[in-house]
Amino acid sequence: MIRFATIGTNWITEAFLDAARLVDSFELAAVYSRTEETAKQFADKVGAPRTFTDLQKLAESDGIDAVYIASPNALHAEQAIWLMNHGKHVLCEKPLASNAKEVKAMIEAANRNGVVLMEAMKATLLPTFRSIREHLPKLGRIRRYVANYCQYSSRYDAYKQGTVLNAFNPALSNGALMDLGVYCLYPMVVLFGQPRSVKAQSVKLESGVDGEGSIVLDYGDMDAVVFYSKITNSHLPSEIQGEDGNMIIDAIHTPAKAEIRYRDGRVEDITAPQDKPPMYYEAQEFIRLIENGEHESAINSHRHSLWTMEIMDEARKQTGIVFPADER
Amino acid sequence: MIRFATIGTNWITEAFLDAARLVDSFELAAVYSRTEETAKQFADKVGAPRTFTDLQKLAESDGIDAVYIASPNALHAEQAIWLMNHGKHVLCEKPLASNAKEVKAMIEAANRNGVVLMEAMKATLLPTFRSIREHLPKLGRIRRYVANYCQYSSRYDAYKQGTVLNAFNPALSNGALMDLGVYCLYPMVVLFGQPRSVKAQSVKLESGVDGEGSIVLDYGDMDAVVFYSKITNSHLPSEIQGEDGNMIIDAIHTPAKAEIRYRDGRVEDITAPQDKPPMYYEAQEFIRLIENGEHESAINSHRHSLWTMEIMDEARKQTGIVFPADER
Repeated sequence: MIRFATIGTNWITEAFLDAARLVDSFELAAVYSRTEETAKQFADKVGAPRTFTDLQKLAESDGIDAVYIASPNALHAEQAIWLMNHGKHVLCEKPLASNAKEVKAMIEAANRNGVVLMEAMKATLLPTFRSIREHLPKLGRIRRYVANYCQYSSRYDAYKQGTVLNAFNPALSNGALMDLGVYCLYPMVVLFGQPRSVKAQSVKLESGVDGEGSIVLDYGDMDAVVFYSKITNSHLPSEIQGEDGNMIIDAIHTPAKAEIRYRDGRVEDITAPQDKPPMYYEAQEFIRLIENGEHESAINSHRHSLWTMEIMDEARKQTGIVFPADER
Repeated sequence: MIRFATIGTNWITEAFLDAARLVDSFELAAVYSRTEETAKQFADKVGAPRTFTDLQKLAESDGIDAVYIASPNALHAEQAIWLMNHGKHVLCEKPLASNAKEVKAMIEAANRNGVVLMEAMKATLLPTFRSIREHLPKLGRIRRYVANYCQYSSRYDAYKQGTVLNAFNPALSNGALMDLGVYCLYPMVVLFGQPRSVKAQSVKLESGVDGEGSIVLDYGDMDAVVFYSKITNSHLPSEIQGEDGNMIIDAIHTPAKAEIRYRDGRVEDITAPQDKPPMYYEAQEFIRLIENGEHESAINSHRHSLWTMEIMDEARKQTGIVFPADER
């Protein structure tokens, strides 16, 4: 059994636990929260046998093999490095950190300590994403990747009324690019690698984070177009354009349906069966790595996390989005 | 009656004539082609009473009030200016010229001679486009314009086999941006004006033109995303994203169906009835201007043509697409 602790007590941790429990060798050993009250409440809710309110004690505990981190983005790097330095494997929510400098430090810590570090990017481990990768050659020469994730945030209603909740707080390294843009960029680097250049535009809100943004990326013989928003929705699917046909993907952040529309009019459904909740597959991959003594996922790899973050750093640089974490 | 001559003898001129003849005061007086044979053949085909093979004679003819120009892009400016200097009104196919320098010279010639100059951009004069403009305030604060026109060109098959046809010839100021990108940009400037900045990416083919490209544009509190291609198709509609809802437009180059999807789930069809072929509306607008003694369309205005071309100049500059016309 792989004995897990969790950091973070909101809905995403609950969703992770619901999914991870479907993996045979998953065991929830403890939950962490800064306050005893929240930790106890959450432990009762999710059935955890133990609570921690001190990260050092969690790190030093013999009863924990791995930690799932779903704290605010700005805390990921420090918490993950601390835990890895104590030999814990770390599955860390997206985006992996605040910036590439932090991601590099996390990768170094993982390598130095011989533990697994993986970004909890659910999309790229889903069966339909694997199918997308496998069927890509059928498109002929690929000329464009178009991906979007635009989802009006209920927190934006509060924002407009003068209350800046976490989602729009630069101190937590949040905003549209970090929270939603990452879902467009990560699959892109998994499929097409590192772009030659990045050209970004965004709408910066008064709080200092971006409300939405748009990026074009150069891949030499193809372009990528990525746009994301927390202040509007979109009704457009994502699309990979090849000379012989296009792949249409319902939602790049959780691909559940994909098809190829060939130039000659044929349509091929390449959706792969998925009988588990989306986060099951990342839990399964992470546990498989630990059990096999591997240190890194081939798909959600260190370099894919780093390349994604380097693109986000560059996009923020071009659009003037600065986090306190950048100045540490 | 407004007595028209046409320049250019391919399908687009025929489509224009089919549409323009539905306007009461339209009269086809002559056709022009460089060779007598083509001119005669085309005159027979379309029922023109007269032919010209000498542009000077056409310009000097008392029997012609207006000229529809559908020659290669690289010839638009020279032909239009020559004709306007002889008092002819000019309806000129998109893009209006090879670059902004030429567009400026054309606008000067129109103003100097007191004649109508209008870009034959059909999209922005269609009933459904007028409906799009009118309903825009319903979207709330607008945050993004996403438009694409990607159409695999049959000439690309020839190109790949080694034959560079007109569509891929830089000497004619052609390529994806000029031929298709313009259809995404022109409606954008009509709706949102001049952008603050342009960031462009493209795939340049060996012939020297772009096969496809992607542009993001900064409008301060909104972004625009535009992509176009002659080497792939797209299955994505265009979309204008507002905080309260989105407008979905079937095809930005010839909008025939548009609807608003409000954030609360309501859907409003804003398609306007259109009982004439798309080019009818540009012919009607152009003739109306002449008859009313106006010199410029309020929608397909000189400045909209100039702004569009300035964006295209900048996009070409950033992506290394140079035409011989730029060096004249």
